[in-house]
This record gives sequence, C-alpha cells and structure tokens, in this order.
Amino acid sequence: MAQINSESTVLRPSSTVHRRIVALAGGVGGAKFAHGLAQILPPEDLTVIVNTGDDFEHYGLYICPDLDTVCYTLAGLANPETGWGRVDETWNVIENASKLGGPDWFRLGDRDLGTHLERTRRLKEGQTLSQITKDFCKAWGVEQTILPMSDQPVRTIVETEAGDLAFQEYFVHRRCEPRVKGFRFEGVDLAEPAPGAREALQAADAVILCPSNPWVSIDPILRVIKKVKKPVVAISPILGGQTVKGPAAKMFRELGFKPSALAVANHYCDLISGFVLDKIDEQLKGDIGINMSTMVTNTLMKDLNDRSRLAQDVLHFIEAEL
Amino acid sequence: MAQINSESTVLRPSSTVHRRIVALAGGVGGAKFAHGLAQILPPEDLTVIVNTGDDFEHYGLYICPDLDTVCYTLAGLANPETGWGRVDETWNVIENASKLGGPDWFRLGDRDLGTHLERTRRLKEGQTLSQITKDFCKAWGVEQTILPMSDQPVRTIVETEAGDLAFQEYFVHRRCEPRVKGFRFEGVDLAEPAPGAREALQAADAVILCPSNPWVSIDPILRVIKKVKKPVVAISPILGGQTVKGPAAKMFRELGFKPSALAVANHYCDLISGFVLDKIDEQLKGDIGINMSTMVTNTLMKDLNDRSRLAQDVLHFIEAEL
Repeated sequence: MAQINSESTVLRPSSTVHRRIVALAGGVGGAKFAHGLAQILPPEDLTVIVNTGDDFEHYGLYICPDLDTVCYTLAGLANPETGWGRVDETWNVIENASKLGGPDWFRLGDRDLGTHLERTRRLKEGQTLSQITKDFCKAWGVEQTILPMSDQPVRTIVETEAGDLAFQEYFVHRRCEPRVKGFRFEGVDLAEPAPGAREALQAADAVILCPSNPWVSIDPILRVIKKVKKPVVAISPILGGQTVKGPAAKMFRELGFKPSALAVANHYCDLISGFVLDKIDEQLKGDIGINMSTMVTNTLMKDLNDRSRLAQDVLHFIEAEL
Repeated sequence: MAQINSESTVLRPSSTVHRRIVALAGGVGGAKFAHGLAQILPPEDLTVIVNTGDDFEHYGLYICPDLDTVCYTLAGLANPETGWGRVDETWNVIENASKLGGPDWFRLGDRDLGTHLERTRRLKEGQTLSQITKDFCKAWGVEQTILPMSDQPVRTIVETEAGDLAFQEYFVHRRCEPRVKGFRFEGVDLAEPAPGAREALQAADAVILCPSNPWVSIDPILRVIKKVKKPVVAISPILGGQTVKGPAAKMFRELGFKPSALAVANHYCDLISGFVLDKIDEQLKGDIGINMSTMVTNTLMKDLNDRSRLAQDVLHFIEAEL
C-alpha cells in the first residue's frame, strides 16, 4: 500500500501537470472540485461527466440541477454563498407563481429559469441534452468539456420507508428526512453514455471521482459508463464522519454502514486504485484496502484557493502513484 | 336616430348606475375601459369576456396576452407605461434565455412569467382556463368576473400577403408589417363559451364592445358567443382615423375600408344599437346608421380618471338610450 502525504515537497513539483482527466461529478462538491481542476489543467485536458439522475420536470420545465451547478461554477456564474444557483439572482417568477398557488419547494431563480426555459424549448425541438449543454457552455465561456452522463433519461429513485421517492422529492421537498432503504436508477439499462464520453474516457490518463455523494451522484454515472479501464482515484466526500453538504453520511448510516471515509473507500473498492481523504481522517489510512494508494490532505474547499490546491494535490497524487 | 351629448347635465345624473354589464374586451384598450367600468359598477354587476384568439405557446408556456392584460389592469398590477405586462417588472429570465440563443421577440417579464408557469402547470394537470382565471383573479384581489371567451383553444390566423401567420407572429414578431387579406379563427366552430358566459349574457342589461380591435379582438369573441339578445353598444377604437395602439386602422385600410369610427360602426351594424365615438369624429355622427343611437364624448383614456369618466358616460348613454 503506497501512501503519500501532500505536505511532502518531493511530491509537490512546481511544474504544471499535464494529464488528461475525466472527472465524474454530482452537484456542489463535485462542481467545486471540477472548478479546481479547471484552474490547473488546460481546458482540452478536462472532461467533466455529470450526474443527470437528479434531473426532473417542474412547471413543465426540464431541470438538471447537477449539470447546471457544474456549468455555472465553471462559468463563474454560481452563487458563492450557496454553491448552487446563480449569482445576483432574483426570485420574481417563483414568488409570483407561488402567490397563485404554485409549488415553491424547489427554488427556481429568475436567471436560472432562463436556462431551463431555453433548454426545455430546445429539447422539445429535438435537440439532445449534450448538444444543448455544449451550446450553453460556449455561450457561458466554459472551455472545458462538460457532458451530461447520458442523453437518455435516467431517474434516481430513493427507496425509503415512506415509499419510493423521485430524487428531488426526497432531496428538496422532503429534506432527506425519510429513512433510506435503497436506490434504483430508472432507465439506466437503456441509457448510453453521452456522445464524447467514451472517447474522453479512452483518451484519459486518469478518472477522478469528485467528492460527491457516492450513492446518488457517482453511482448513476458509473452505471451508465459501465467500464472504466483507466486508473481511478476518489476523493472522500465524508470527512470526520460527516458531509459538507447533502445526505451521503445519513445514507451510509441508514443502509447499515458507519459513515466515514473508510466506508467511501470500501464503497468504491472494486474500482479505484487511489483514495484521497481528509487530514481529520488520517487515522483511518491504515484501514484502507491494500490495493489502494492513499493521500491525506486538506479536502475542505472553503474558497477558490482551496479548490485549486486540492485539485493540484490530487493531480500530483495521480502523477506520483497511479 | 337618437343622439346624446355627454356634456348635457340632464344625461349625467349623479346617482350611481346599477346595470348588469357584460363587456367584451381585447388587450390594452379593452382593459382600460373595463377598468373604468370596474371603478363604477358593483363587482357583481360586471363580467368581462376576453379574447383568447391571441393565446399562444412560447417556450412551452401557455400565454394569454389579452386575458392577462385585463386581469393585471383590474388588479392594479399592470405596467402604467405600456398598458400591458406587470408594474415593477424585471427581465432576467428572458435576458438569460436569449443569451443562450432563445427567442426574445416576445417580451416575457419575470413576474409575468410566474403567471404563465403556474397557468401552464395547472392546464397540464387538467384544469380549465376559466377555472384557473377565476383562481388567479381571487389571488390578485379582482372581484369582478373575468372570463376567457372559451376554455377550448381558438387561434386567430392573420391571412397576409406574406402567408398565413399565427397572431403573435404577425403582431409582435412581424410588427404587423405584412399586408392583411383576411382572418380566420381556428377552432372557433368547436369552441363553447366559457362556463358562466351564457348566464352573464342572459342576466346582462347591456353588452359593451370595448374600444378593442374589431377584427381580431371583438370578432373572435362574438364568433364564440354567437347570439347576443341584449342591447349592444360599441365604443370606437378608431378616432380621427387612427388607433391609440395596435393595427386596427391598418387592417381596415388593407381590407379596403377607409379607417374611421364610421367604418367601425358599419362593421358592427347588424349587432349594435348604440355607438360611442370621439369628439374628434363628431362630424361623422350624421353618417352613422339610422337604427343606431350615438354618443359623442372624449374616448381617449390617458389616465385613470379618463377610464372612469368614459365608463360613466357610456353607462349613462345605455341608461338613457338603450
């Protein structure tokens, strides 16, 4: 078992790392890390494949929460307070719709709605989600490649003690309260990876599982892309037994696992050859599988510098170990 | 031929007029006059039946321009500058959608979009347009009855030298430029008056054709409601050969009629027994059909007082003459 420490100067060369990377990402955590990678890698060397299992229709509009969070973040349009939604947002549409009795449990900002309206219009015209995402990224000045995991619909269903719930119903409307029993990804068997995803994976030097929810952000992408023949490194979204955001720790617990970085490493054990965990969890390092290289570093991304630094650390780890 | 002059004190009693009125209305001009009636009549005595031939789908949303203009105006939510749309409006949705390549020829404000989103959501749930309108009016504090002319879709097609154009395509996108050859109202033969419309017409003491476009605002409503057995009075939307807003004068001209209050009176001659024309057109009074009472007054509605005053004049005219 090889282990490196990010503070070792030997393992932090000042030269720029040029590796072709595919990052698999969910929402806020994945977007922050992908943004870090985007600060370091040449744009043509980074492809982000984003979970679309959370996508849903609301008010007849097709909404892709994770995809939009990743795009807005890389475009510099994300709300820095929340990590999701748009900066300088206004809320006049949903405020007025809810005055008329419309549902307001999913917060749709006005600028954000511009995205949903135009995406829905194009989908109805027959354009694919990946083509639309490409056009939107161009308009937003995003030079990296951002792909939805698939152009076919995949819908994450959270199986809970309160019954089966569509993901946003569970996540936003029910605030992750119902106890989780399992997950299924409707449509996943028919879903093809989005055009360009297979080629990007083929060309990649390594694949990074961003610090996103393993159960509902990364697993659906892995189910769609099926085989990954390249070295894979995962960054634990759980540090000190908790998540920065979202229900991953709660899900581990309700499914019978003690939530920890170790549980995340075990979850991915058949796939990954490298694992990144937070300094707070350094004592878990010895318990992580012998086929896995590990790196301990500061994984908390509080500001833009943290994103770049963590991305740099992970790229050096890949360079040195995988 | 009876004629009255609004300046005659005899014909302007100070007592409140209590007549049950059904007003047929299109957009801005009709909304302003209906607003005037709403200042004077008890709410239960006023029903406004609104043209829905201009309705269309845009970005997948069901939009009712005339209905919304009437509702917003009676609710005090209309933009006083334009006469349509919402006061204190923002434009973040459409601005962002158009940055992504979306069409921006139809100006959709953010607050206004709240209406379209919730209406579209309810229509998809199976609610009728009249039920939705009733609920919206309640939420907006509108006590008068506002009815769409029908719950079934009727679509005004403008037959032009540039081909057949859907109404908003002609009106907004092409700025009424193509020369008009005729009109048709798709679906009108299958359209039933909205629930309550027949009863309101039955109970009415008089029907008022608001100063709206005869060809594309009032005619579609008349085609749907078919028979009117009550006295009908029309207010000319053309004064001094011109309209305040919209293409009615241009349409008369392109269809071979000299645009004037007289042309409007002739257009409605089989239906109306009273006609209201502007002072600027006083000289036309003698040419108006002998079966018609006429009133000359100031029909221009520049401010809220003008709306009430014109409504009062018309109600007195009805009281005295019809």
